[in-house]
Amino acid sequence: MSVKTEFDLINYIKKSFDLKAIGDDCAVLPASGETDLLITADLLIEDIDFTLSSTSAADLGHKALAVSLSDIAAMGGRPTWALLTIGFPQPLWETNFVEQFYHGWNALAAEFAVELVGGDISRSPDRLVIDSIVAGYVPKGSAVLRSGAKAGDAIFVSGSLGAAAGGLKLLQNSVTATGAAVESQKYLIDRQLRPVPRVQLGQRLREENLATSMIDLSDGLSSDLHHICEASSVGARVDASLLPIDKDAIAEFGADEALKLALNGGEDFELLFTVSSEKISAVNSADPTRIGTITQAADGIKLIDRDSTVDLQPSGYRHF
Amino acid sequence: MSVKTEFDLINYIKKSFDLKAIGDDCAVLPASGETDLLITADLLIEDIDFTLSSTSAADLGHKALAVSLSDIAAMGGRPTWALLTIGFPQPLWETNFVEQFYHGWNALAAEFAVELVGGDISRSPDRLVIDSIVAGYVPKGSAVLRSGAKAGDAIFVSGSLGAAAGGLKLLQNSVTATGAAVESQKYLIDRQLRPVPRVQLGQRLREENLATSMIDLSDGLSSDLHHICEASSVGARVDASLLPIDKDAIAEFGADEALKLALNGGEDFELLFTVSSEKISAVNSADPTRIGTITQAADGIKLIDRDSTVDLQPSGYRHF
Repeated sequence: MSVKTEFDLINYIKKSFDLKAIGDDCAVLPASGETDLLITADLLIEDIDFTLSSTSAADLGHKALAVSLSDIAAMGGRPTWALLTIGFPQPLWETNFVEQFYHGWNALAAEFAVELVGGDISRSPDRLVIDSIVAGYVPKGSAVLRSGAKAGDAIFVSGSLGAAAGGLKLLQNSVTATGAAVESQKYLIDRQLRPVPRVQLGQRLREENLATSMIDLSDGLSSDLHHICEASSVGARVDASLLPIDKDAIAEFGADEALKLALNGGEDFELLFTVSSEKISAVNSADPTRIGTITQAADGIKLIDRDSTVDLQPSGYRHF
Repeated sequence: MSVKTEFDLINYIKKSFDLKAIGDDCAVLPASGETDLLITADLLIEDIDFTLSSTSAADLGHKALAVSLSDIAAMGGRPTWALLTIGFPQPLWETNFVEQFYHGWNALAAEFAVELVGGDISRSPDRLVIDSIVAGYVPKGSAVLRSGAKAGDAIFVSGSLGAAAGGLKLLQNSVTATGAAVESQKYLIDRQLRPVPRVQLGQRLREENLATSMIDLSDGLSSDLHHICEASSVGARVDASLLPIDKDAIAEFGADEALKLALNGGEDFELLFTVSSEKISAVNSADPTRIGTITQAADGIKLIDRDSTVDLQPSGYRHF
């Protein structure tokens, strides 16, 4: 196994060691007779997942927690407690970065009544390293998995797509939110640096038993839809014209590029979920947008883009 | 707060955010009506906590889990599940390092029936980064804390001290276990690379209600005893002549240096615990060794070394 993606490795480990809890946004573990514990970990490494030149310490603290809250949201959980593990390079340690990071983290934690219960602090030779671990709870057996989609279900996403990737593109082109950026650029950068986890929506979809499957958009729609289809053994048909592509991303980059950002950009941290046909009307259409339909596995995963139907390749973010 | 240790920062965060669960080997969280959940995280960063030139992938997998199991042991817990978060540099990813690491991790996990339930895999620019998270359970309210020591309690340690630090010293002097090392050197290096977490002992001390306080020896006896004394608001008197200094460390480095390794070296992952006077005889003397007595806080933390009594300075490992 010398050429592998991280998904290959996860599957290899899962099979080798006969692990059943692995493979969703969070692990689901029995907590008591009435509740299941959800737990997720997200590793953020400087110069891979962020650069210190384009984020403030407080925004980084916010994002480190937000990405994990988003995993809890994707299973319909109520986030409850967290661990925070950080390796600091010596020069950062000697500034007020550390305190500012915790303040940013804590401001978001307070919104969701998440308590910091532990973690680890270490020295790092040169790069900042953060592992964000968040736990949440759901009533026993009610966590929304990736594996519940059925042919005929409608596919929905929350919010707008492509904004976070658009913000990243601006930052990579040295546009910063504090410079001469116009409002729409500031908004896109904010979507990249301060994602809003869809915790309430995730809980509502679980409580009202509306979502048959769910995942958060971290890698990108094309990849994350593949994760749902694999876990559920189904296919999918997505209509490009229905995608809620972010308006500011379109304005900044044009429609074609914005579509690519929406499909493959990742980090929007919106929720992608499926709903059985009889419950479609119960999903409040004010926010979540229907973008397609679940099909049979044999039909593959297709994108209808104007007159043509093409395979929707999983082109979202991969570490390897 | 520009000059600070990691302990200062932990206290700062704890106070700023009014956190109560932080400050022991593990966080203790209510899990159900009958049980508490223990959870701990340990960050290991290449060139800070290990070097790839002196450990095999499998041994590193073993150690990453062992250090967290040791935290569960220090509270008397039964380890149950784990998360493993790893950042791999690209060149390592392309070898079989990854699989060997997981096999080493899993061999130890199987001994304690610990299930891998999740984690994260990421790319790292140049250095291997590991965050090991382990959870365990204890009957409600029974976790052994650092804060329960009382004046008059006896102080015990398990196993022998200074071996792991001795092994590190050998590795730093380019002695490897596979070269011309004699048996005693191989043993010391093994204690550094493949620590044995004292899980059964920790559980027995909790089940039989023998330990009034407990911590694992990760930073070093001098520092870890300070942690117990601070948390319990007590002092301590340790007799150097009673310390179970590792015989091979004495043979390799001489008595004076071995005493320093035993006091300040760290990473022995033995258990340091206190026992009330009426229960001393119930602690099986075959392994744990009595090394001193808890005193009043005003008496300080003292080492009796031959004819002199000196302050036992916390000189164990600090990241900052």
